[in-house]
Amino acid sequence: MKIGFIGLGIMGTPMALHLVNAGHQLLVATRSRLPDAVAATTAARCANAAEVARQAEVVFLMVPDTPDVEQVLFGPGGVAEALPGEGSRKVVVDMSSISPMATKAFAAKINALGADYVDAPVSGGEVGAKAASLTIMCGADPAVFERVLPLLQLMGKNITLVGGNGDGQTTKVANQIIVALNIAAVGEALLFASKAGADPAKVRQALMGGFASSRILEVHGERMIKRTFNPGFRIKLHQKDLNLALQGAREIGVALPQTASAAQLMQVCAANGMADLDHSALVRALELLGNHPVAEA
Amino acid sequence: MKIGFIGLGIMGTPMALHLVNAGHQLLVATRSRLPDAVAATTAARCANAAEVARQAEVVFLMVPDTPDVEQVLFGPGGVAEALPGEGSRKVVVDMSSISPMATKAFAAKINALGADYVDAPVSGGEVGAKAASLTIMCGADPAVFERVLPLLQLMGKNITLVGGNGDGQTTKVANQIIVALNIAAVGEALLFASKAGADPAKVRQALMGGFASSRILEVHGERMIKRTFNPGFRIKLHQKDLNLALQGAREIGVALPQTASAAQLMQVCAANGMADLDHSALVRALELLGNHPVAEA
Repeated sequence: MKIGFIGLGIMGTPMALHLVNAGHQLLVATRSRLPDAVAATTAARCANAAEVARQAEVVFLMVPDTPDVEQVLFGPGGVAEALPGEGSRKVVVDMSSISPMATKAFAAKINALGADYVDAPVSGGEVGAKAASLTIMCGADPAVFERVLPLLQLMGKNITLVGGNGDGQTTKVANQIIVALNIAAVGEALLFASKAGADPAKVRQALMGGFASSRILEVHGERMIKRTFNPGFRIKLHQKDLNLALQGAREIGVALPQTASAAQLMQVCAANGMADLDHSALVRALELLGNHPVAEA
Repeated sequence: MKIGFIGLGIMGTPMALHLVNAGHQLLVATRSRLPDAVAATTAARCANAAEVARQAEVVFLMVPDTPDVEQVLFGPGGVAEALPGEGSRKVVVDMSSISPMATKAFAAKINALGADYVDAPVSGGEVGAKAASLTIMCGADPAVFERVLPLLQLMGKNITLVGGNGDGQTTKVANQIIVALNIAAVGEALLFASKAGADPAKVRQALMGGFASSRILEVHGERMIKRTFNPGFRIKLHQKDLNLALQGAREIGVALPQTASAAQLMQVCAANGMADLDHSALVRALELLGNHPVAEA
């Protein structure tokens, strides 16, 4: 199949390689230098996203944020200029993590131009992208989802159709809210325990298996105790995702007080030079406030 | 063995019954009416806690809060009046959930009077107390812990010695911090998802198994969606536990911003007549703020 891929960054490059390695004809457009790994394949470079969309049946996007998706789709030389095009109905698959509300608007515009839309944000990071083990949360019409599923299966493992357009992005935001707040939960609990004189490693062990148990207590709790804050998932990326949550909450009219406060704790980290540490380093913001580390480095 | 038990409430009564049913001679003191279930056993009623401690080798406490423990131990007619007593060295086992810092002071005073101290707060609630399946988090000298362990095993299953005196209570506080904040995390995520138009049940399902997974997402997330807020663990009891966390944090000099905010959300519930609902009803505070329920009742 002729497949377009826009956004050959840390995530996009290994994802695109899985597609081309499976025998698909890849079409790419990038303003910066083509990554060597992609240049070494049969991938064809196009002048812009419109040219990619003119030739490809399915166009994947993996770009940083909402304005980037808008630019690739609807800016000059964007995908929309090539729609509906000829042959079978084209599909835009946005795997970036962006605003759920903007996604619904983008999908409606793409639909109006005679093409289909799938929002399919991922979790699993660079490791998951390389291993083709990403978790993919989808919002789409079920028939459209079925059409692109074999392609998504080349990049990920746990692939869920949550609902219609936007629901994939909504699920990703919900995921990032829980992960951030569970990190803060473990951070406050271990800091309290440590400053109260208990061994945080023994407290963590005692809490596993009970109602306090979580994947974050397991993985990020251990990072806090062992002081291994190399990413993982960077504070600055989680800041972007919490911004999507808080901006979205404002648009739809809900209040997220715990998320807002956690975003500020991440801001404390960023203000202290920790934006590129793993998000488990949120505990260091709490440690700064309490002038006490959970454990010695 | 002659065993004292002070505090025959909803939790204490079934716990004491497990001890007497195992063949131990139970000694009790209660200012209110003796529960029928206890009166029907061989339990002997004493005039006060001092009288209990005079006869018993091990004295269990299961009372509401820090001042209650202080009163039973050091008030008029309290346990301290009977110490050190004759025969083998006596042990005080406090299974109440109280201040870790006060616990260290109480233990030091009991030690100075020639007796041993174990803090052994529990989780698992009335169901766990009746089923003898409580989780018990202990702070004690290891030899003293070993001495009372066979008795604790009559009341609970997952029994951990975390460290010295106070560390059991510290672990319980850490547990309650994480549980409260994970409930808030799931609440904010599901509220965002619902108001954004997604099906919260499908979002929850998509998040299970990933980094957002937790026992709270599993159990309390389902309660939020199914609107089953019958306790469980009551908001007003969790309020007491978060108060222990925040009061303790003030004493030891750490800041717990997320815990403080979650305590206020529980206060929103209490202010709206929900103090006796399950703590998963914290989501209703968020729903009030956002004027939108996660799901219809």
